[in-house]
Amino acid sequence: MSECLFCRIIAGTLPTEFVYEDEHVVAFRDINPAAPVHVLVVPRAHIETVADLGGDTAGIMSRLTAAANRIARDAGIHNGGYRLIVNCGRDGGQTVFHLHMHLLGGRQMPELAA
Amino acid sequence: MSECLFCRIIAGTLPTEFVYEDEHVVAFRDINPAAPVHVLVVPRAHIETVADLGGDTAGIMSRLTAAANRIARDAGIHNGGYRLIVNCGRDGGQTVFHLHMHLLGGRQMPELAA
Repeated sequence: MSECLFCRIIAGTLPTEFVYEDEHVVAFRDINPAAPVHVLVVPRAHIETVADLGGDTAGIMSRLTAAANRIARDAGIHNGGYRLIVNCGRDGGQTVFHLHMHLLGGRQMPELAA
Repeated sequence: MSECLFCRIIAGTLPTEFVYEDEHVVAFRDINPAAPVHVLVVPRAHIETVADLGGDTAGIMSRLTAAANRIARDAGIHNGGYRLIVNCGRDGGQTVFHLHMHLLGGRQMPELAA
């Protein structure tokens, strides 16, 4: 069994409700939400960080974004607005080393901290 | 003359040092940096928000990401890590309505605020 938490969710061995899925992408709620809407949008392929994208995987960020936009519409936060975040590595605050995009909305996001 | 701040920067009417540029993307430092490295990665095409991407522009987020990864390497924050943020609309904290990706690094990023 994969030791990657998100690979186990994608494989269904860690039952999780998907708020969106397609051939390349799944999405599920963050278990420690930082906003009223906080969804993780994740490629099915195991790619450790955003810095690893390129070649065959170069288009994945656009796929994640298209999914996030659709989830935002379905969640009714399309008009209010939302924030997309990808953390890369230690300084980025990445905790699970399977690439994922945070979709945050449902309240005013704070200014980027100086 | 365009009333869009970023279109004026891209056109060269508001002189700005580019830290990266290619056929589709330019990047320059944020004038109010929120981290030691804080670069805005911007499509040359005027697209208001990330929610407007699709069709011919669907691939833009992948182009912005590839540029951000390269800028991070050039800035020497590739190993430490970094955070990519796209704000969409009011709740997202978007202030300039020309799509842009924030590249933040050079220090530990804070946890996503609850």
